[in-house]
Amino acid sequence: MTSTGELLLEHTRDVPDFPQPGVLFKDLTPLFAAPKAFATVVADVADRYRGRVDAVAGVEARGFIIGGPVALALGVPFVPVRKAGKLPGDTVQQTYDLEYGTATIEVHTGAFAAHRRALVLDDVLATGGTAAAACALVERAGGEVAGIEMLLELTFLGGRELLSSYDVHAIAAV
Amino acid sequence: MTSTGELLLEHTRDVPDFPQPGVLFKDLTPLFAAPKAFATVVADVADRYRGRVDAVAGVEARGFIIGGPVALALGVPFVPVRKAGKLPGDTVQQTYDLEYGTATIEVHTGAFAAHRRALVLDDVLATGGTAAAACALVERAGGEVAGIEMLLELTFLGGRELLSSYDVHAIAAV
Repeated sequence: MTSTGELLLEHTRDVPDFPQPGVLFKDLTPLFAAPKAFATVVADVADRYRGRVDAVAGVEARGFIIGGPVALALGVPFVPVRKAGKLPGDTVQQTYDLEYGTATIEVHTGAFAAHRRALVLDDVLATGGTAAAACALVERAGGEVAGIEMLLELTFLGGRELLSSYDVHAIAAV
Repeated sequence: MTSTGELLLEHTRDVPDFPQPGVLFKDLTPLFAAPKAFATVVADVADRYRGRVDAVAGVEARGFIIGGPVALALGVPFVPVRKAGKLPGDTVQQTYDLEYGTATIEVHTGAFAAHRRALVLDDVLATGGTAAAACALVERAGGEVAGIEMLLELTFLGGRELLSSYDVHAIAAV
């Protein structure tokens, strides 16, 4: 693991039984509360994609906290991937399976038509369902997925398998 | 209005009848998609509070997009103010009235104890209900509200009245 990965894990808090009994939640709020570590992570992500992406697609909601700074560091548009019903105007929607039930996310129609190469960005890679849906939305909104960046990967959930057609990078893995 | 205010309005899109008939929604996604304008707005906010705040309290979800960059520009912690049920671990909650029904937001217990002077940050000041609840949470989590910053104020909704005990600034107003 890189020094940035170690820094990230130092600022990750384990919270047992959240959001439900038996789940060990990886809480990244300590990272966001540590300005130097947060800045190091943002610079690490931006350096990896500089010149290779035309937009950052941040996944609601924690992907927004990282996505704004990364987009600004790269000097490219930030495009929010939102939960259904939150974006005004025309959107494309994608529904995907959760452990129990389904979820729907959306982006503005044509959001990537003028800046095609998108970096899909979120905080934690778990089953990969949300990321796969976000990638489908990028493509349906006129773009192509130049990469998927996650701060932390939960390898035991096997999310990479669902994303095998994409270039996936995680700063740290547990 | 300042030149930053004019820039912000140039990157605001009016969407009629969202989220319900009769409402003219102010969509700021064009701002987030314009890197130079977005950077100008972030710098404007950061310059206003530099040396006067110890933390940025960003309100979910659009306050996250701005809040991350502003916190990094100031070199202070970013603390997420989240919708109920999203934060792991111990939280303080605040319920407030909406036009129909109520909403609940929360922050981590003691989130501002070590960095007391908080900037409460969100994109649009409407009725002020969410901002007032966020201020109450800052105070209940060990902090004090050093200022409330909104990108855009809808003056006809009178939100400032609910926030009259605080220092409120909006970059643009309509």
